[in-house]
Amino acid sequence: MDPSRRTELAGLYRRALLDDVVPFWLRHSLDAEYGGYLTCLDRDGSVYGTDKAMWLQAREVWLFAKLYNTLERRPEWLEAARLGYRFLRAHGYDADGRMFFSATREGRPLRKRRYLFTETFGAIAGAHYAVAAGDEAAWDLAERTYRLVVGLYRDPQSHPALAATLAPKTISETRSMRSHAMPMILVATSQEMREASGDAAYTAVIDEAIHEILTDFVHPEERALLETVGPRGERLDLPAGRLVNPGHAIECAWFLLREARHRDDRTLARRALEVLDWSLEWGWDEPHGGLLYFVDIEGRPPEQLEWDMKLWWPHTEALYALLLAHAMTGEARYLAWHDRIHAWSMAHLADPVYGEWYGYLHRDGSVALSAKGSMWKGAFHVPRALLYCMQTLEEPR
Amino acid sequence: MDPSRRTELAGLYRRALLDDVVPFWLRHSLDAEYGGYLTCLDRDGSVYGTDKAMWLQAREVWLFAKLYNTLERRPEWLEAARLGYRFLRAHGYDADGRMFFSATREGRPLRKRRYLFTETFGAIAGAHYAVAAGDEAAWDLAERTYRLVVGLYRDPQSHPALAATLAPKTISETRSMRSHAMPMILVATSQEMREASGDAAYTAVIDEAIHEILTDFVHPEERALLETVGPRGERLDLPAGRLVNPGHAIECAWFLLREARHRDDRTLARRALEVLDWSLEWGWDEPHGGLLYFVDIEGRPPEQLEWDMKLWWPHTEALYALLLAHAMTGEARYLAWHDRIHAWSMAHLADPVYGEWYGYLHRDGSVALSAKGSMWKGAFHVPRALLYCMQTLEEPR
Repeated sequence: MDPSRRTELAGLYRRALLDDVVPFWLRHSLDAEYGGYLTCLDRDGSVYGTDKAMWLQAREVWLFAKLYNTLERRPEWLEAARLGYRFLRAHGYDADGRMFFSATREGRPLRKRRYLFTETFGAIAGAHYAVAAGDEAAWDLAERTYRLVVGLYRDPQSHPALAATLAPKTISETRSMRSHAMPMILVATSQEMREASGDAAYTAVIDEAIHEILTDFVHPEERALLETVGPRGERLDLPAGRLVNPGHAIECAWFLLREARHRDDRTLARRALEVLDWSLEWGWDEPHGGLLYFVDIEGRPPEQLEWDMKLWWPHTEALYALLLAHAMTGEARYLAWHDRIHAWSMAHLADPVYGEWYGYLHRDGSVALSAKGSMWKGAFHVPRALLYCMQTLEEPR
Repeated sequence: MDPSRRTELAGLYRRALLDDVVPFWLRHSLDAEYGGYLTCLDRDGSVYGTDKAMWLQAREVWLFAKLYNTLERRPEWLEAARLGYRFLRAHGYDADGRMFFSATREGRPLRKRRYLFTETFGAIAGAHYAVAAGDEAAWDLAERTYRLVVGLYRDPQSHPALAATLAPKTISETRSMRSHAMPMILVATSQEMREASGDAAYTAVIDEAIHEILTDFVHPEERALLETVGPRGERLDLPAGRLVNPGHAIECAWFLLREARHRDDRTLARRALEVLDWSLEWGWDEPHGGLLYFVDIEGRPPEQLEWDMKLWWPHTEALYALLLAHAMTGEARYLAWHDRIHAWSMAHLADPVYGEWYGYLHRDGSVALSAKGSMWKGAFHVPRALLYCMQTLEEPR
């Protein structure tokens, strides 16, 4: 990339992060009354719902702590992280060590789900908050939560008392399926724990999870990272078994690329770049542009009604994945893909009037939901991608 | 309606039912190998998934039995009902008396859900099949299944052994919500049991369910039938509490209208017509046309990504509700509404090439999913509405 282009693009990402997106969440999401964050925000930031999704509480804590730890020690970021962390700690945990999925505005628990994703976000929130605030108890809780997840990943029978809370939806005597989401999130979670602690021991879990992804979910004969496979990684002849989630696969690709760079592992980088290449091909939607949410590799109708909607996060993940791929390989096609997705995202997803990005567009790029936040969209993918894009472009060459 | 128009429209519905929609399902859905029905059918009827949703197994049994019982004693309809009923009986029931939600093609159970809807469809399938086939055991099982649902509706503690299978998703100490779907389906289920048996005793359950709907879910001050309310019928200030499901409300309106006609109850008819009027106003989507799937009564973003999609079933329910309203009142505006929805449905939902209707359109009326059937769309709403529309138009005046 020519240096002036790099400087211009870095400035664009920096301004989007610091003058638009972070201020949007600081202004609208902090719940001064009950602690934590309000994330059901309409286009202009007005609140349309007050329930609190724990994924998003944890992710926003992580964001403010990460900004504080890696970008600048702004007291307002530390305060914002503290507001969320105290809520998460007071109301996020059940007595059995697991976390709740959602709570009322005041913090009374609404749902606990069978998936361990809240726990992974709780761990990275606590780990980075512990560093930012120098809070050792926060670290201990984060580490305990992380160990619980890893223990259950390695052996689902390791915590018999939790078995009932983790029972799969599908009767496992009839059909057993494995989801890409679990090893994928363990790579990212362990990377964040390692970064916050400086402890290389987390690498062992990353190795296990990467091995599982590359062996069982990456199917070169289909040129696809499959979202759901059978117990031995086999392709299942079902709608769920034919499903590619391009955004998820692209996000996984950059988790792997970051790991490859961390280790200077060219074989891993090559495998990650393959996943990135395939997933862009599956996801990119001519002639409308943008990335599809779900694709059936045989072109059959997916089960998800929203399959052809354009969501914000596959686009944010692609922007960073492509800048990282370009930085690591120097290949011009990654920059060309970045520019294509950047132009489409800025034209359709970004809101120049009230700031932040829309979350949910129709296939043709028109706005389907006016919300800037929901029980699923919070202060996470957009600012994380803007931060990482900016940092990638500002790295010394 | 002028008599020649009525004859023409009745003929149109009759041909759509008997020359298009019923043959589509007879041709593509009968599973000669394992019994039951294949419902994951692409545009041309080709199979893209073989799992069997028990709702749809039961509803297709009901349809063929109903056609046989009320329209014509065609042996192929009885055979088609038998194929599905045997599968449902062999594979639909768990040992505890509840039913499974889905199974593999061979009938091995995949999921059992916390809702009792499978059981209500199982009851009406068994009841009408019992009449068609003269199968007393089918009647006994249908009646037992119906009694289980009614018992749990009246007192959720009535079957302590089932409590764990019925626990709500939301922690009820924090928030208790009631759904319109339960009393609504009990009205329709009890009507079908009464029709199949000729036993007026089912009317007591209908009375209870109608009372609950009119007292707690119909909110005249909002001009809305709300989909979810609090324990005492109060409006909840949450996205779920502001939700109107126009298709559901319109379907409920015709359940109530049929009941009003059955009883010659003008007060009930007036209440039902109000719900119909309001729900058409909430649902009709200018300038695109068609009925929205979900609407927030304050114009806030709904939680459902698919909120502005146009699904087949709100349109089929509206067609019949409006013809019935017109037949009962003679008011021209119901016919005008019928004609508007009929024209939009025929232009966008019906498939003149391969038959049947698409299930899922974008807001603008373009096809979002090519499927004719899925784990949710089967041989039910389209043929039921065509049958009832035809019967309404062919009634002596």
